[in-house]
Amino acid sequence: MITLRPRLLLALLMLAFALPASAADPLPSWNEGAARQRLLDFVAEVTDPASASFVPPAERIAVFDNDGTLWSEQPAYFQLLFALDRVKALAPQHPEWKTEEPFASLLKGDVQGALAGGEHALMQIIMATHAGMTTEQFAEVVEAWLATARHPVSGRPYPEMVYRPMLELLAWLRANGFKTFIVSGGGIEFMRPWTQAVYGIPPEQVIGSSIETRYELRDGRPVLVRLPEIAFVDDKAGKPVGIHRHIGRRPILAFGNSDGDFEMLEWTTSGTGPRLGLLLHHDDGEREFAYDRKSHVGRLDRGLDEASRRGWQVVSMRSDWRTVYPPHASR
Amino acid sequence: MITLRPRLLLALLMLAFALPASAADPLPSWNEGAARQRLLDFVAEVTDPASASFVPPAERIAVFDNDGTLWSEQPAYFQLLFALDRVKALAPQHPEWKTEEPFASLLKGDVQGALAGGEHALMQIIMATHAGMTTEQFAEVVEAWLATARHPVSGRPYPEMVYRPMLELLAWLRANGFKTFIVSGGGIEFMRPWTQAVYGIPPEQVIGSSIETRYELRDGRPVLVRLPEIAFVDDKAGKPVGIHRHIGRRPILAFGNSDGDFEMLEWTTSGTGPRLGLLLHHDDGEREFAYDRKSHVGRLDRGLDEASRRGWQVVSMRSDWRTVYPPHASR
Repeated sequence: MITLRPRLLLALLMLAFALPASAADPLPSWNEGAARQRLLDFVAEVTDPASASFVPPAERIAVFDNDGTLWSEQPAYFQLLFALDRVKALAPQHPEWKTEEPFASLLKGDVQGALAGGEHALMQIIMATHAGMTTEQFAEVVEAWLATARHPVSGRPYPEMVYRPMLELLAWLRANGFKTFIVSGGGIEFMRPWTQAVYGIPPEQVIGSSIETRYELRDGRPVLVRLPEIAFVDDKAGKPVGIHRHIGRRPILAFGNSDGDFEMLEWTTSGTGPRLGLLLHHDDGEREFAYDRKSHVGRLDRGLDEASRRGWQVVSMRSDWRTVYPPHASR
Repeated sequence: MITLRPRLLLALLMLAFALPASAADPLPSWNEGAARQRLLDFVAEVTDPASASFVPPAERIAVFDNDGTLWSEQPAYFQLLFALDRVKALAPQHPEWKTEEPFASLLKGDVQGALAGGEHALMQIIMATHAGMTTEQFAEVVEAWLATARHPVSGRPYPEMVYRPMLELLAWLRANGFKTFIVSGGGIEFMRPWTQAVYGIPPEQVIGSSIETRYELRDGRPVLVRLPEIAFVDDKAGKPVGIHRHIGRRPILAFGNSDGDFEMLEWTTSGTGPRLGLLLHHDDGEREFAYDRKSHVGRLDRGLDEASRRGWQVVSMRSDWRTVYPPHASR
């Protein structure tokens, strides 16, 4: 069971990221401005027992997209980079991949060519690297990758590619009685091994896309085997479905960054009582990456058009955030 | 949203069931004996920081079956009795049911005849009564039914058919840092409207069988529509799958009462470290119902055969429980 094994690297990262509690300023990495003020006002409003907008702690559900909202998602979703690394690692056990697409192109370093096969090629890569093992084995593979792999642009370990302002926001919401959930299009079992250490979010508060699993006995020992079959896609209109399935009540705060989060914000902010929807705008090519309407990864188009009319707060990475990433763990 | 509407009856029940905290005896409805002692020893062991068996609070996950473990399940699963009542209530909108089976038999009061159609007939009844409306509408229907329906044998409201010793156990585990979950073959949305009030278990800690839902806009307002299609069956080998899907880690305590809970106990107790599996044996025909190996509802056969060898604790309702139900709310 993964939670009982030592996770040294992640524990170290967690210590490095631990942020000093500050009664004076709960959000030190956020610049003064409309976004920060909306967050401060919203939390003050829902936690004040004298306010007409008071929300009991049990109903203070806050949901966060992961890729592009809590950590970076460029030059490609990190889970895709994980899958590509896994293809290389598994190649010796699959001699047939030398000639079979999309693996043959991948192994020659031609990612573009491999992905030319579209969704079918992508599914083949995902299933070859994510299925066919037990849930425990998969968690070990993810942890081992996170401990050694480095981001292709920054050279940092992936768990250091998280956004410091968001770590502050998560911790501050929890200090105010909120229960924080991840609602991601990414794989639920790709996230769960590390979300507690990195975000302070336990596995039972992580919602994501999933493949089917089957319970079986191996040498008399029960295991859950990961099958090459999609169980649930937690993206777009799937996000409210996933939220309802896992949480069973409507969040009061939703934070995303792409049109894949549109329905999550729509569902959250159309409930009665105080509601807050936020969209992170990646407009900071210097400190992170600049992309929105035309990006293949994390496209934000309709959200930008409709945010104002719907009362959603657009957060500018460039102007609303004082810092982007936490300091290196080694410092 | 259901959590924002007043739920007067359930609130009253909750008050009626509120149990006085007792440092001297956390389980006053449990008789002295092996079952009670195992529970006391297990909790003492995993919560003692000096013990080699200490378990950090985050990993103190306890899972409970619902039907027959937390509340009664005779003479039929209460959700089936709900469905039968719903057929009668919906009949005026469905004139075709007068001649269509299984509805025609049901409306004549012939439940046996209606269910003669087997699983197909049962599915027709479930889908006709559980699908074709929004999640909010369904929650309202469940709450209205619970507020008025009465158990056919005891004449009590269904939320009073819960087991007092189990309410004590749930509260005491939570007081010791456990997170309590329901893992039921019953419908997840049939349980969620009332589990917080009755068991102290919030909707996000309820796992059950489910039908598919679809996100859509109705007059510009987003809703989740319940579809006549099974999404997940949380029974037998489905229980470990559901646990993994929702919780993402293995429980350390599992409590069930039928062979439908066998794999849940097997999965729970085969993990490393301290583990406890328990099976409630319905051997009390005087205070509740007596049934086990030959029952159509809640059959317990293999579990009785293997409990001893597997180290699972069989709890005798007759000898281990001082009381079965809480006092009437009106008293």
